[in-house]
Amino acid sequence: MRTLRTVTELRTAVRAARRQDPAGVIGLVPTMGALHDGHVQLIREARLACEHVVVSLFVNPAQFDAASDLAAYPRDEQSDAGQASEAGADFLFAPSLETVYPDGFATSVQLSGPLVETLEGAHRGAAHFHGVTTVVTKLFNMVQPDVAFFGRKDAQQVLVVSKLVEDLDLPIRIEAVDTVREPDGLARSSRNVRLSADDRPKALALRAGLLAAEAAFAAGERDAQNVHAVAVQAMTDLGVAPEYLALVHPRTLAPVTTIDGGTLVVVAAHVGGVRLIDNTTLGPDPSGRR
Amino acid sequence: MRTLRTVTELRTAVRAARRQDPAGVIGLVPTMGALHDGHVQLIREARLACEHVVVSLFVNPAQFDAASDLAAYPRDEQSDAGQASEAGADFLFAPSLETVYPDGFATSVQLSGPLVETLEGAHRGAAHFHGVTTVVTKLFNMVQPDVAFFGRKDAQQVLVVSKLVEDLDLPIRIEAVDTVREPDGLARSSRNVRLSADDRPKALALRAGLLAAEAAFAAGERDAQNVHAVAVQAMTDLGVAPEYLALVHPRTLAPVTTIDGGTLVVVAAHVGGVRLIDNTTLGPDPSGRR
Repeated sequence: MRTLRTVTELRTAVRAARRQDPAGVIGLVPTMGALHDGHVQLIREARLACEHVVVSLFVNPAQFDAASDLAAYPRDEQSDAGQASEAGADFLFAPSLETVYPDGFATSVQLSGPLVETLEGAHRGAAHFHGVTTVVTKLFNMVQPDVAFFGRKDAQQVLVVSKLVEDLDLPIRIEAVDTVREPDGLARSSRNVRLSADDRPKALALRAGLLAAEAAFAAGERDAQNVHAVAVQAMTDLGVAPEYLALVHPRTLAPVTTIDGGTLVVVAAHVGGVRLIDNTTLGPDPSGRR
Repeated sequence: MRTLRTVTELRTAVRAARRQDPAGVIGLVPTMGALHDGHVQLIREARLACEHVVVSLFVNPAQFDAASDLAAYPRDEQSDAGQASEAGADFLFAPSLETVYPDGFATSVQLSGPLVETLEGAHRGAAHFHGVTTVVTKLFNMVQPDVAFFGRKDAQQVLVVSKLVEDLDLPIRIEAVDTVREPDGLARSSRNVRLSADDRPKALALRAGLLAAEAAFAAGERDAQNVHAVAVQAMTDLGVAPEYLALVHPRTLAPVTTIDGGTLVVVAAHVGGVRLIDNTTLGPDPSGRR
């Protein structure tokens, strides 16, 4: 695996790969580093689907709503490089802050509407997704991949990036990859390492809420309000109040009142000062999409 | 020349051209139609510099600040196609409004700062350049050219698009092409056809103001305020008051007080209900760039 720092180095490497292998598919796994098994899974899927795999590693200040969260975000490039290489990456693109946002940078790519204004957008502020869509547009243009891989743990981000690609006609396919969990069910997240030993069990409250929703749905409950109540109760039983827990349409994020195929349950909660999110889908999506 | 209506048709054609001729340069000339000799010159330059030339034809509602201006904007695809073909275009990309802005379109590419907030941005409103940068990003992603050609008549637009390309890392080179003029000096513009016979001579006021500035500079005047006064006087002598006339830095658009190499003089004025713009450069740019 080669580590590349500048856009020129990156483009030279990617263009050489394309020239050598014009039919080869180029896959990108954008990350903020602090790689865990969820990222490793993204890279493995990219490795299976693509001839050339680029992993990007850039902690994007523009998408952090709290300076303290940015400052506390774990950074360990050596460990990240080891994991990326082992999972099958060909190139690690690890640009500096100045490479991505040089002096005088003045452009923003912004979505509007429920996809960016509800849930994560409402709680983290509009700047969060503007930061995501701006840096993702830049990374896509820097790397020019055919496919980009994102984790389903960030369900709303997958929708936002897919809409970005559609609206800006980016010639890129978005692949969503299933959430990887700890043995006890906690969704893998770079923020998990910040949970204290005392708080770690409480972090299971998010998954407990989602499982309670799944159980109620499996038992035949179709009223969203009832499922919501059951899920919140399961969380509060473990001592955690959700920041939000919502049953929404899997594409539009519009709240649903009666659960039908593919309803998305999304949850966010603060556990011991660490903000965690998770989600699940109730029943098969009638459109056949996931 | 082939006319293409959808992004799929366009991409199929461009990819076939790339496959057939991997080293061939693809040039894009984005236009809003109503082609005149200025556009023809852009297409000719693209023809000389590129193996494959795409001309796009799309009247972008998002960049019109006045509905009346949009409604009055001349449209004649048959004439446009004839001129584009004769000037050497290989492909005319003429998408429908729905192709460019489908239902639910929700993304905006926005620059901030003096490049979009002063001069045209101040007088036409912020939405104008947001409309330009959004549609240009889309067209660039649809066509994926190596080079795109823009006319120097829209000097600020050239700067805005160049900054967009830089900030979003678009893998595209921007070529600025000199303004083409009517025999009497009026800058070619699609809006010129809307000038009445009575107003047509008054339209020369913009060029007269710029020539007065050039003459003052040539005579040794270096004080921007004095040159400004001379230029405005030349316009009012012809019965036209500028909307703005400004001496600015050719890259930052910051107002200059003392003229040095490459100072840009930009002017806008309404003549008989038609808004016209023009510009000139005083002296050589010390950086060697134009």
